[in-house]
Amino acid sequence: MRIEEAEALDSADPLREARARFRLAQGMIYLDGNSLGALPQATPELLARVVEREWGEDLIASWNAHGWIDAPVRVAAKLAPLLGARPNELLIADSTSVCLFKLLSAAVGTRPERSTILSQQGNFPTDLYVAQGLVELVPGLKLVTLPAEQLAEGIDEDTAVVLLTHVDYRSAAIHDMAAINAAAHAQGALTLWDLSHSAGAIALDLQSDACDLAVGCGYKYLNGGPGAPAFLYVAEQLQAELRSPLSGWMGHAEPFAFAPDYRPAEGIARFLTGTPSILTLAALDAGLDTFAGFSMEQIEAKSRRLSQLFIDEVEARCGREVTLASPRDPAQRGSHVSFAHPNGDAVMQALISSAVIGDYREPNLIRFGFAPLYNSFAEVVRAAEILEGILTTRSWDQTRFSARARVT
Amino acid sequence: MRIEEAEALDSADPLREARARFRLAQGMIYLDGNSLGALPQATPELLARVVEREWGEDLIASWNAHGWIDAPVRVAAKLAPLLGARPNELLIADSTSVCLFKLLSAAVGTRPERSTILSQQGNFPTDLYVAQGLVELVPGLKLVTLPAEQLAEGIDEDTAVVLLTHVDYRSAAIHDMAAINAAAHAQGALTLWDLSHSAGAIALDLQSDACDLAVGCGYKYLNGGPGAPAFLYVAEQLQAELRSPLSGWMGHAEPFAFAPDYRPAEGIARFLTGTPSILTLAALDAGLDTFAGFSMEQIEAKSRRLSQLFIDEVEARCGREVTLASPRDPAQRGSHVSFAHPNGDAVMQALISSAVIGDYREPNLIRFGFAPLYNSFAEVVRAAEILEGILTTRSWDQTRFSARARVT
Repeated sequence: MRIEEAEALDSADPLREARARFRLAQGMIYLDGNSLGALPQATPELLARVVEREWGEDLIASWNAHGWIDAPVRVAAKLAPLLGARPNELLIADSTSVCLFKLLSAAVGTRPERSTILSQQGNFPTDLYVAQGLVELVPGLKLVTLPAEQLAEGIDEDTAVVLLTHVDYRSAAIHDMAAINAAAHAQGALTLWDLSHSAGAIALDLQSDACDLAVGCGYKYLNGGPGAPAFLYVAEQLQAELRSPLSGWMGHAEPFAFAPDYRPAEGIARFLTGTPSILTLAALDAGLDTFAGFSMEQIEAKSRRLSQLFIDEVEARCGREVTLASPRDPAQRGSHVSFAHPNGDAVMQALISSAVIGDYREPNLIRFGFAPLYNSFAEVVRAAEILEGILTTRSWDQTRFSARARVT
Repeated sequence: MRIEEAEALDSADPLREARARFRLAQGMIYLDGNSLGALPQATPELLARVVEREWGEDLIASWNAHGWIDAPVRVAAKLAPLLGARPNELLIADSTSVCLFKLLSAAVGTRPERSTILSQQGNFPTDLYVAQGLVELVPGLKLVTLPAEQLAEGIDEDTAVVLLTHVDYRSAAIHDMAAINAAAHAQGALTLWDLSHSAGAIALDLQSDACDLAVGCGYKYLNGGPGAPAFLYVAEQLQAELRSPLSGWMGHAEPFAFAPDYRPAEGIARFLTGTPSILTLAALDAGLDTFAGFSMEQIEAKSRRLSQLFIDEVEARCGREVTLASPRDPAQRGSHVSFAHPNGDAVMQALISSAVIGDYREPNLIRFGFAPLYNSFAEVVRAAEILEGILTTRSWDQTRFSARARVT
């Protein structure tokens, strides 16, 4: 596709106004919003207000005067339409890993007669690590991992929880959430989804898909900033039954009664632990505001068009140099695309030097994320052109580059 | 003391320059830095730089280019001199409650044949709640609480961990850390200290006192901002032995190898879990910079002079109206002072209306924190004058105020 055609697609894009909601560095083609979302225009001013006006002037009174104490649920409510969840099913808290530990241990606690956490081979490592940490703590519990295609049949009456990442961090392969939830429920198991690579890019409907539990990342497509707090989701009907072992005072029914015994709050607030991080909640609040006025169906549709255009352009230009490592069917794919190249790491370094920002994932994947709110069709074509230039005008002899990589 | 005498003390105060490092609202006497530290002058600019320059312009490259990935250890190193710890024994991470869960569960894991977590009756509730959460998860484990004076003798060969708050959040009573550590070690138990009301106000020497484990709060005397991340401390010689069940990718020996099995990092980094919160690490960094050039001995000495002057002034002016609820001996006291009053809540509301900011703690305590870096002797005298005015010129009939409290 010529760049003019891509620009015409951008002019007709129903999301074209959204790009102005972000500060994007001139001349950079940023295709790594799946790793760290871009800075929203509104974030610096909002943060400055929270810091200088609220913290600086009103100090401790801000917990009530500026609603700090409710921020974990107030900001979470903005996320509800992105996930197809009810506002009272969501919280912003901690990191994804910590939220995962809370919900995984709470879920296992409801199935004491079952001993298996079932997950996928090659799941995002922190998900497996957290499960391994819990397994070491709880006698009799074990973690079983299976290849994706064996998961549904691998769920049995010993399965307490099925722990999966909805969109694979390497390939972007997407699970059929409704089908796996149904398979799990048929066996009496719960499901816990990591939505880190889905939320804000893929249209989710946690309610219709009968999702039990989920966590996800605030700093990717949600634009909450580096190390933003995570979100957690607990289906309303499960909340009373689940108890997080990270039972801190903010999850207590009466945090300021300072009672000696833990009594969990009614509803989703019981999954809070420590004092909420007000500055990062403010940044995530601004990140979520970048979605205002657009539906997740529009966003998902653009995501698929962007990633498909990139695949088409790369394969047309340099398809013999790289191998698609993501599903070819857009419906089976999240919002990023990976290609395999024997010198993937060096190729990505060359791209970054040419101001096309993606990232590299072991063992040989160059990965490109498409954030529908700010990436354009013209950027996609330009990035493919630059990749073509890098792959076809340089010698990518594997031995040489591996040797160089060792000394730099 | 006349205000002029207090002002003379301020002029001679070796910490007098430190006050200019903070933005303090005109006309407010802020005696609640033990709950939320004041805003450092440098914080807004530092945060703006991290947000606009690092996140906004350099995006994902900032993890290396701006050292984001090392922030949890780099910022922690600034804390080392405040605690008498080695830099490699400290991390900034998560919330105090989450850090407490990590270290408590790791400690218990090293003593599987012992079944008791020993703590204090009336310990800060979240500490007890976290222990209760762990007890529910780990079969055979129990939490035992004793009054302060029975703790040392309550440690026995079934005690896995002694979990205590160094400075009591209500009375400011301070434990003899070295003595309790010695008593615990004599029985083969570990100690885990919550330093939330100590760090930045009291001179600590975790090394000399043979402290095993500690956590503490970033948003009180450390001035890290509302909901700042916490710190955790693990004595060097224990690090290899301890494993946190919150085994997230950032605590892995090679986080970016994306290996399927968790292998803890060497050293303190193994206690990291999720992606570090860069914005709040920056704010805490600025908070810790407010200590530069002053020793904790100077800071502790001023803390004791401030709190003693406040006790003396209040008792001289209105000693029949309130009862000291903190230790009378300054060496037995942290950096805040509590007085009991039957209408404590209403008295504190009146004080706040008069721009003297303390807080109220159940059942009847008015609590005043003294932050040696920014509170002055003149503020102490003025606050006591205002309290005297409130207590002696109004009728504080208990029934009437209780009734009013119920309808507002």
